[in-house]
Amino acid sequence: MLERRRLPRGAIRAAVLTAWERPLELREYPAIERIGPGEALVRVEMAGICGTDVHLWRGQLPIPLPVILGHESVGAIEQLGAGLDHDWRKNPLSPGDRVTWASSIVCGECFYCRLKRQPTRCLKRRAYGISYCADEPPHLGGGYAEKILLRAGTAIFRIPAGLATESVIGAGCALVTAIHGLERVPVGWGDVVVIQGAGPVGLAALAVSRQCGAARVIAIGGPPHRLELARKFGASAVIDIAQAPDPAERIRLAVQETGGYGADVVIECVGHPAAVREGVEMCRDGGRYLVLGQYGNAGEVLFNPHVITRKQLQITGSWGFEPRHLDRALSLLAGSGWGELFAQEVSDRFPLDQADAALETVREWRSAKAVLTPNGDRG
Amino acid sequence: MLERRRLPRGAIRAAVLTAWERPLELREYPAIERIGPGEALVRVEMAGICGTDVHLWRGQLPIPLPVILGHESVGAIEQLGAGLDHDWRKNPLSPGDRVTWASSIVCGECFYCRLKRQPTRCLKRRAYGISYCADEPPHLGGGYAEKILLRAGTAIFRIPAGLATESVIGAGCALVTAIHGLERVPVGWGDVVVIQGAGPVGLAALAVSRQCGAARVIAIGGPPHRLELARKFGASAVIDIAQAPDPAERIRLAVQETGGYGADVVIECVGHPAAVREGVEMCRDGGRYLVLGQYGNAGEVLFNPHVITRKQLQITGSWGFEPRHLDRALSLLAGSGWGELFAQEVSDRFPLDQADAALETVREWRSAKAVLTPNGDRG
Amino acid sequence: MLERRRLPRGAIRAAVLTAWERPLELREYPAIERIGPGEALVRVEMAGICGTDVHLWRGQLPIPLPVILGHESVGAIEQLGAGLDHDWRKNPLSPGDRVTWASSIVCGECFYCRLKRQPTRCLKRRAYGISYCADEPPHLGGGYAEKILLRAGTAIFRIPAGLATESVIGAGCALVTAIHGLERVPVGWGDVVVIQGAGPVGLAALAVSRQCGAARVIAIGGPPHRLELARKFGASAVIDIAQAPDPAERIRLAVQETGGYGADVVIECVGHPAAVREGVEMCRDGGRYLVLGQYGNAGEVLFNPHVITRKQLQITGSWGFEPRHLDRALSLLAGSGWGELFAQEVSDRFPLDQADAALETVREWRSAKAVLTPNGDRG
Amino acid sequence: MLERRRLPRGAIRAAVLTAWERPLELREYPAIERIGPGEALVRVEMAGICGTDVHLWRGQLPIPLPVILGHESVGAIEQLGAGLDHDWRKNPLSPGDRVTWASSIVCGECFYCRLKRQPTRCLKRRAYGISYCADEPPHLGGGYAEKILLRAGTAIFRIPAGLATESVIGAGCALVTAIHGLERVPVGWGDVVVIQGAGPVGLAALAVSRQCGAARVIAIGGPPHRLELARKFGASAVIDIAQAPDPAERIRLAVQETGGYGADVVIECVGHPAAVREGVEMCRDGGRYLVLGQYGNAGEVLFNPHVITRKQLQITGSWGFEPRHLDRALSLLAGSGWGELFAQEVSDRFPLDQADAALETVREWRSAKAVLTPNGDRG
Repeated sequence: MLERRRLPRGAIRAAVLTAWERPLELREYPAIERIGPGEALVRVEMAGICGTDVHLWRGQLPIPLPVILGHESVGAIEQLGAGLDHDWRKNPLSPGDRVTWASSIVCGECFYCRLKRQPTRCLKRRAYGISYCADEPPHLGGGYAEKILLRAGTAIFRIPAGLATESVIGAGCALVTAIHGLERVPVGWGDVVVIQGAGPVGLAALAVSRQCGAARVIAIGGPPHRLELARKFGASAVIDIAQAPDPAERIRLAVQETGGYGADVVIECVGHPAAVREGVEMCRDGGRYLVLGQYGNAGEVLFNPHVITRKQLQITGSWGFEPRHLDRALSLLAGSGWGELFAQEVSDRFPLDQADAALETVREWRSAKAVLTPNGDRG
Repeated sequence: MLERRRLPRGAIRAAVLTAWERPLELREYPAIERIGPGEALVRVEMAGICGTDVHLWRGQLPIPLPVILGHESVGAIEQLGAGLDHDWRKNPLSPGDRVTWASSIVCGECFYCRLKRQPTRCLKRRAYGISYCADEPPHLGGGYAEKILLRAGTAIFRIPAGLATESVIGAGCALVTAIHGLERVPVGWGDVVVIQGAGPVGLAALAVSRQCGAARVIAIGGPPHRLELARKFGASAVIDIAQAPDPAERIRLAVQETGGYGADVVIECVGHPAAVREGVEMCRDGGRYLVLGQYGNAGEVLFNPHVITRKQLQITGSWGFEPRHLDRALSLLAGSGWGELFAQEVSDRFPLDQADAALETVREWRSAKAVLTPNGDRG
Repeated sequence: MLERRRLPRGAIRAAVLTAWERPLELREYPAIERIGPGEALVRVEMAGICGTDVHLWRGQLPIPLPVILGHESVGAIEQLGAGLDHDWRKNPLSPGDRVTWASSIVCGECFYCRLKRQPTRCLKRRAYGISYCADEPPHLGGGYAEKILLRAGTAIFRIPAGLATESVIGAGCALVTAIHGLERVPVGWGDVVVIQGAGPVGLAALAVSRQCGAARVIAIGGPPHRLELARKFGASAVIDIAQAPDPAERIRLAVQETGGYGADVVIECVGHPAAVREGVEMCRDGGRYLVLGQYGNAGEVLFNPHVITRKQLQITGSWGFEPRHLDRALSLLAGSGWGELFAQEVSDRFPLDQADAALETVREWRSAKAVLTPNGDRG
Repeated sequence: MLERRRLPRGAIRAAVLTAWERPLELREYPAIERIGPGEALVRVEMAGICGTDVHLWRGQLPIPLPVILGHESVGAIEQLGAGLDHDWRKNPLSPGDRVTWASSIVCGECFYCRLKRQPTRCLKRRAYGISYCADEPPHLGGGYAEKILLRAGTAIFRIPAGLATESVIGAGCALVTAIHGLERVPVGWGDVVVIQGAGPVGLAALAVSRQCGAARVIAIGGPPHRLELARKFGASAVIDIAQAPDPAERIRLAVQETGGYGADVVIECVGHPAAVREGVEMCRDGGRYLVLGQYGNAGEVLFNPHVITRKQLQITGSWGFEPRHLDRALSLLAGSGWGELFAQEVSDRFPLDQADAALETVREWRSAKAVLTPNGDRG
């Protein structure tokens, strides 16, 4: 449990990453009295612990310290800045509304935003829980906190009444990541798909593949509780890495499950560099490979580029997501049985002062999805 | 010079690869009296020495031995089998006609031909100069020979009168390879392109990029005589690897030439695995990388897949070509100044019994393009 | 009932179109003793009456007379020609096997087959039930007959044991038409789709749209029994043209059902020229319109091309299908609940001598799907 | 010549459309002393008379009256509002700079901007010279005036020193229209293209087709001075509509010029509804048809939708353009010989008080391109 100091009245508590691979610190920040035009002050109901948070904690991405982690959150609006009266979808917005938001803000004016239409690679992109130094006012830039201040320009989405917070956080940034990835590498109806990894991104990629009409989806991963979830999400077959610890054996099994030629589409949702080397061998010739899990810089792997030529592959990367992907994610969660399935991912709840324990369950793959409830279980 | 034995009357001489990395042997095969339906017997006028021939000679691809190399050739029809009276374009075909042909034949019925429309990955694909064991009748399956027997189903193209043999062989399989590659990774008008390599494939990729309306094309390679040719082919800038031997320096120079962000499209035409690792760094974020040179299995390289995610890249391989690409190549060569430019690549001519010397000039990058004239310079 | 003449022993009966808009004639053709290499003689179990058959009967397409109609059929193999021992999917083929087949054969060599990869527009394409004059041997070129002779080169598909003949004929050429059409105009997951027409093509387009993950599919048509079927096929909403006989009213209703902006994709499956004029108004700006029902030349309609510019539309046509689309159709029918649903379309069965009555039920939209059982209900 | 009234000191003159098909009026508007944040006051050097201006004058599009026409203009910055110190490309901006600008501003927030990424169909899009009622302050919303006030959010482009104003206005909105259109319907290298119309849009489509590497471009139009310009722009062949007044004859000639099958891409740049009916017959089967000229609502034409199915066509519309298309246009004009060619289109110059005469030369197709110089020929 994080050390508790005596809090001044109104101060806002947050779990803060202050040094790579060190325990988070529980810090307090001054209460926010007035907010600027277009801003929103949100009381955090639930914040997901994303696998990327582990990468960040390990220092695998260049970010400022200290930082309040947490880039997938749901909360209730406490205060709305001048001019902010509608959400991204043009629904009216009022204090008390339950909302989520796109984790990053782009400039809309740079080379990538304007000319190349790659806004996820915006030169000035900043993301909650990642890019905002907690030492600088207004401090509250991540979801591992009692409150967060949403900057002007944030794409805020009011959550429909029937959609549970657990569904939104269970899907988390994994679902929008998968939606963006599968926009870049579409799965067509009738395609045979292999998914490497049965964590949140893998399950989300499985859901979207199913939604696209894939004929068969083979999920590779573990541990068993995640593979069971993969079956609920519609996996046609699962391969347990504990039972097939050898990459060559996994390739053999996966290719066999595809009918002998390899998959039309293989989606990497693991995060270890070696997964890419292994996964391209699971593609049929002329197939597509989507690199979806390599968000952190986890180093190099020996790779033979001849395989790209010989198998005539297409290998595609995808970074982050845009607000319109979150719009699609929320529609998917609201309009079908997917919301209930994703809610089942939320397996472990922690109060704010146990943020470290939460991070640890993710680091060790113990949970399907761990979450923080910074203001207690009742939100 | 290969050892000459006394030839029986009518015997057909060929330069044969009998063991990896050993000198070719000049062998004789029996004269062919009668040919089957749909076949064509062709007297070889000129055969290009392709960089792939060096890969084959080194044993970097699984092929049968002995083999008559030579998969890019021009010759004159000597005999036409029953039913063969038109070329692939439906032009009438007669003995004496100067022709070239697609180097491979596909089955049209397998998983890749029928269902996945990836005929270059046909499960039964066989290629002249590569797949036919010279010990098996009818023996004559490659261009390094006085004659070649074209199997039924070969896509034969009559060469228009105004198009020089040097243009066709100068373009060689490099041009069709580039055409196929750029079909899979289109260059749009206004794109900034970097080409790694200034050999035949690099020059061909340069020509096609120009044809597609690229705004700038930066060629990286050497030696100087090839870079000079690259300028003639329309390179906006060239980077000499001898003057920039450090990969990091080349990346810096190439990115600088693109305007600071990297190229929209980078095309690898080198063949060394390390080129891929280097080239992806020359792409702008969201850019496309075409692996065009890794035909031989030249081993592994350390590679960080995080770059695919972080730069949101698309990396695409391309294998071989289809007859329709050869159709386009011949149209390009015939209909513009490109024919003359490609003819300039032909820098070194060798008789059949100096096939080894020819292969060596390619192995050592001494020539722009070396060719054999198996029946003498007059064809 | 067609007039019965006394039949010689072994003669094969067929229902023949001899003049536009005149009753079919029951004619006899000589028994077939020996068949050529690659051919197959098939005893017809069931032949679907397609809407196109009505267009043909009316003379809206240029075909030879007399002709045995019937281009969507299932039958049992009686005799196999030399060399024909596998189906298109490489399954072994034996007498007695239940099969269906692609209705057309292409040349594989013409401008459209080779260069433009538009085999459905092959210059020498011939289709069963459409292109073969019944006066010329071997006469048996359509499904409205006791037997049909499949020419060499026909793409034959053995029907899996668990897949009912009614499923295959219920889906008929409508399903492959829809699969090809939606390949040209993909429906993405989350798309809102409007389908004009609730006949076999409309229902098939509905099934494929659902398979692709459409968020909403609105079906417009009638009569009520077809709209009920549309609901079973997954329509989110139906609009009955009998209750909304005014095009402007239908446009208003359809746009309203899409959420106010129009559909991402509108699919025309009606066949009346006026449907196109009406349907483009149901598209959102920047939407896609698939013309799938205009197989017959049913004349002109007043059309304002300004709408294409102003709404920034994409309007796409699709003709026929390829064998690979039939492969996908059979996989879809076999591997899910779709087979059972399509079987429900088969509403009316007629013996061969009532082919005219069968055609009439289709002409008058009385049936969901009428079929012939030329050898009786037991096949 | 428009009637001149006595002007108060500092008043700004503009040619105003006050009623459909009536002469423009020369009106005066009060001088602008202070401008708001992000705005720019520009002294108009040259304003192009676009064919759309004729449609507007005829009342074929729903616009407010009175309106100051002119949506393709070049001018010098007189005053810059607070915060506006860079152009769209991030070049610094100062008073005196010669600039042009995108004619429309979009909201960035509506259904089309956000969700469907069709900003040219923005629900709140407003365009200079089209959407701004001249009665409402700040009045100056079109190029047919001595000055124009650019609203905050306008995409302004500083014109490079070496690029002549005549090049920019000669290209006008025709070039950006063509660039957008050919983005939606790409011309590939080697494609055969037919262009209907040899006015500014037709010439621009010709230039872009050439830039994309089209193998042949056939231009249909008139009068002879425009066809001569078409040849200079790279037309492989021209068809003079005066010599081929019969649509069937034009179709025959155009198809013949394509080699007998029709063009891969046909681009309509005429504006008469009948052109669409004619042009689709010039497409090869499986070809693409780009509707680029139907900006005004010029009524209906009899059309047979069966042709879309039978020829398996793709017909695409394109509306307006985005700032990034203007960026590409200016790069094209600056970086090649195209600037000089487009400058040659400017055939007739008129002072502001002869705006009516200018409009008339366009209406009657007498000029290649007429322009206004509202502050005199010296700008």
